[in-house]
Amino acid sequence: MRAATPTKAPAKPKATSPAAKPFLPVIENEAATGRIVLVCEHASKQIPARWGDLGLSADQREAHIAWDPGALAVSRGLAQRLDAVLIHAPVSRLVYDCNRAPDMMGAMPARSEVHDIPGNAAIATAERLARTEAVYLPWATGLHGLIAKRIALGLNPVIVTIHSFTPVYHGKQRRVEFGVIHDADPHLSVAILNAAHKLTRLHAELNAPYSAADDVTHTLRVQATPYGLPNAMLEIRNDLIATPEAAAAMADQLAAVLNMGLVEIQRQAKAS
Amino acid sequence: MRAATPTKAPAKPKATSPAAKPFLPVIENEAATGRIVLVCEHASKQIPARWGDLGLSADQREAHIAWDPGALAVSRGLAQRLDAVLIHAPVSRLVYDCNRAPDMMGAMPARSEVHDIPGNAAIATAERLARTEAVYLPWATGLHGLIAKRIALGLNPVIVTIHSFTPVYHGKQRRVEFGVIHDADPHLSVAILNAAHKLTRLHAELNAPYSAADDVTHTLRVQATPYGLPNAMLEIRNDLIATPEAAAAMADQLAAVLNMGLVEIQRQAKAS
Repeated sequence: MRAATPTKAPAKPKATSPAAKPFLPVIENEAATGRIVLVCEHASKQIPARWGDLGLSADQREAHIAWDPGALAVSRGLAQRLDAVLIHAPVSRLVYDCNRAPDMMGAMPARSEVHDIPGNAAIATAERLARTEAVYLPWATGLHGLIAKRIALGLNPVIVTIHSFTPVYHGKQRRVEFGVIHDADPHLSVAILNAAHKLTRLHAELNAPYSAADDVTHTLRVQATPYGLPNAMLEIRNDLIATPEAAAAMADQLAAVLNMGLVEIQRQAKAS
Repeated sequence: MRAATPTKAPAKPKATSPAAKPFLPVIENEAATGRIVLVCEHASKQIPARWGDLGLSADQREAHIAWDPGALAVSRGLAQRLDAVLIHAPVSRLVYDCNRAPDMMGAMPARSEVHDIPGNAAIATAERLARTEAVYLPWATGLHGLIAKRIALGLNPVIVTIHSFTPVYHGKQRRVEFGVIHDADPHLSVAILNAAHKLTRLHAELNAPYSAADDVTHTLRVQATPYGLPNAMLEIRNDLIATPEAAAAMADQLAAVLNMGLVEIQRQAKAS
């Protein structure tokens, strides 16, 4: 299961918690009527002033540990091509990783790949609460509201999260170019993978470069699975989407892939 | 799985939705440091003025179809005895049942037991959205925030929802007095049931008078399961808690039962 955070004496909750300025998620294309809701948790490398530079160099603050380079550009390209709404987080995952629960090590990581994060080395309970309130809660509330309203409207939402990964991790080259990761329900992910094999020459794999067992499917688990919504997490190797042109070309390919995957699960639903 | 709502043409979402006055959940005993978070979705029979009387008689608006009589009194008794925080919904489940997703029939039921609900007979999509925004979203957001903050604080929350049920349903007498219902993870429910058998003379059963298969565990499914939190739904036959004295006596019994159940799952967690 999830890695537990180091044991700390629990703090007494206050009846009214200190009001940290909340960082609201950004919603684009909200009037879209397509079924797909695009979610980009790691869109931003922005570290708000109150957290300084977290003790990191400028290079580190640009690197994949701070965000998913290219993921927002692909997400925007997909939103346009699929008549899909898009929601993305405005703060670096080094402050709070919106794809992690507040008690997961990775929510405010002290280390990411080969980098120590000095500003996260010893986070006091009050600071853990403050980041949860400032970043995670507005994010989760915004995403939940977006989804619940579309359920109420009869738009039958399908949740697709968009991520990118580094081609070299802990010194090892990754061969996979496009990963499709599922949580409890694999059917959309399998349909997307099959479509990728049919329509593209991408080296595509299921549950790669990691899987739900690595606790990377928090968003799907909280926001899609309990409502019975089809869902999938897409991972694109970031060297393939390093320029606006490359991201647009990838969006062209993946829009066709997602459309084919969606048609397939709609066919399955009708047949059952 | 869940009963689907009748098919309706999906409505176009607006970029800014009409601001319906939100009905915020009530949180009591927020400074409590006990692990248990008490949740009472059906605490209130209140129908706000904008929904009139939903076409129901005064008797119907007092009946179990509108709320869970006695559940709030028992919840408050438990909150006091267990040093537990309590959250309850301020609006009748006939307007919106906070233990149901927006696309479930039961969220805004057109019929409950033997009663037609005229005000819910033909709910337009815009009205379905308005009720979701006015009642369900503030409820879900408030409960999620309460839980996430306690996770961040290291308080290891355990979610227990408190319900009551009618002794006679569709003309049949129910023999069960105390039901413990689980969602995906049964371990807290089983520990509570065993404690009830040891400590009380209540006729107690697992997954009675209904179970997760009847789609009654929405709150647990959305708010507890995705975070890996131990959880259970308690159902008390409402003729046993019809007076303040009876509710207090039940709270005495169930506080001991919940404490024993909690000790048991903590023992199991240590042993594993």
